[in-house]
Amino acid sequence: MDKENIIEWFEQGSVSIPKLLMNHYAQLGLNEIEFMTLMHIHAALEGGNSFPTPVELSSKMSISSTACMETLRSLIQRGFLTIEQHHDQSSMITETYSLKPLWEKLIYFMMKETQHKTAETQQQ
Amino acid sequence: MDKENIIEWFEQGSVSIPKLLMNHYAQLGLNEIEFMTLMHIHAALEGGNSFPTPVELSSKMSISSTACMETLRSLIQRGFLTIEQHHDQSSMITETYSLKPLWEKLIYFMMKETQHKTAETQQQ
Amino acid sequence: MDKENIIEWFEQGSVSIPKLLMNHYAQLGLNEIEFMTLMHIHAALEGGNSFPTPVELSSKMSISSTACMETLRSLIQRGFLTIEQHHDQSSMITETYSLKPLWEKLIYFMMKETQHKTAETQQQ
Amino acid sequence: MDKENIIEWFEQGSVSIPKLLMNHYAQLGLNEIEFMTLMHIHAALEGGNSFPTPVELSSKMSISSTACMETLRSLIQRGFLTIEQHHDQSSMITETYSLKPLWEKLIYFMMKETQHKTAETQQQ
Repeated sequence: MDKENIIEWFEQGSVSIPKLLMNHYAQLGLNEIEFMTLMHIHAALEGGNSFPTPVELSSKMSISSTACMETLRSLIQRGFLTIEQHHDQSSMITETYSLKPLWEKLIYFMMKETQHKTAETQQQ
Repeated sequence: MDKENIIEWFEQGSVSIPKLLMNHYAQLGLNEIEFMTLMHIHAALEGGNSFPTPVELSSKMSISSTACMETLRSLIQRGFLTIEQHHDQSSMITETYSLKPLWEKLIYFMMKETQHKTAETQQQ
Repeated sequence: MDKENIIEWFEQGSVSIPKLLMNHYAQLGLNEIEFMTLMHIHAALEGGNSFPTPVELSSKMSISSTACMETLRSLIQRGFLTIEQHHDQSSMITETYSLKPLWEKLIYFMMKETQHKTAETQQQ
Repeated sequence: MDKENIIEWFEQGSVSIPKLLMNHYAQLGLNEIEFMTLMHIHAALEGGNSFPTPVELSSKMSISSTACMETLRSLIQRGFLTIEQHHDQSSMITETYSLKPLWEKLIYFMMKETQHKTAETQQQ
């Protein structure tokens, strides 16, 4: 192992996951495979790859690309993930994943939690 | 929803996961449930809770506390996690989790990868 | 350099700074020394040290402990930082820094920005 | 303020800064303006903007674009930052910033620190 490798490892950087999401994904109805699929998409998006394939995603996971495809389909169907279509300069259509619905669900959940707590406090 | 809540959400902050680990946990032999168990411990350690219980961990996961206990046992047995014992001021023994073995395995894996690549390059 | 050191470096982890804050601290009226003072407090708080001294903070900065003390005083006076007093079990008073006012200012700023943009759009 | 804004703020995500760098940038010879200039470049690189202009950088800082240009020149001269030239598909030359020299300096510094400590331990 030489210095060159360690620099490369450092350069790769980190993925930041809000604690709010870490603490509540299960309550949103996500299991660990679904959550990690979304986090791999999150990392890909941040790294400039806006439409990672099931093969790419599953290469970093413990599931097959077929299982990954199934997971993606389910996440889209259940409103955690969307595919956005963009027209680029040459009027080709490009597709990108968006995690906006995930943040939306999280914030909606937190709002309900807060209202619930407020209601409880007022009843006491 | 008022400003107070949003401030609280911001204050919670984020958990940083090195991309090196995100990209290679599966190759280290971890599935998503095992990986997330370690990441919840990582978040607890950073937050000052050095020995989260299976009940605490599973409350943020899609698995039961019994399944979580099993996962912890397996992670310790397979050398991804250790429990360290410390004597505090009043000579009581306190236990804390340490993720040192995880980082050790990751770096060892990266070193082998690098050697492998170097060997391949030299053969060409 | 051996494996042991690299593991230690990895174990130290990262500090996450919201891009919202990175992009707008200057507009909030903070210069780089003030911003970094707050970020060192942020890192200390996350690491369980809730009241770092000017000597501790300045040891990681390019400024003297006297200049650091001045900066802290100014940040408190201008409402970016507060000191909270807590009574611990033995009824001793302990002091901790809180960055709540910083998040408050940031969110207030973002809200105003949004209203401004909305108003502009409606006028068009 | 509505839900839409908060979702946008969440979507922006965070910048991760290794604690190793947070704790030692001053010892590497960087002041806070220089460090933050590098961190703004780090954030831009992660976000896919590989050659932010002094105007872009200074718009997020408390310094003018002229002062920013001076800082960039000094950082390059002192070996904290490099500009890499790439030939793209249409054989145009594109320039990108690289923070590799920063990580290199950091790791070199940590290695020296370690050797120093080891030497001290052996002398005792």
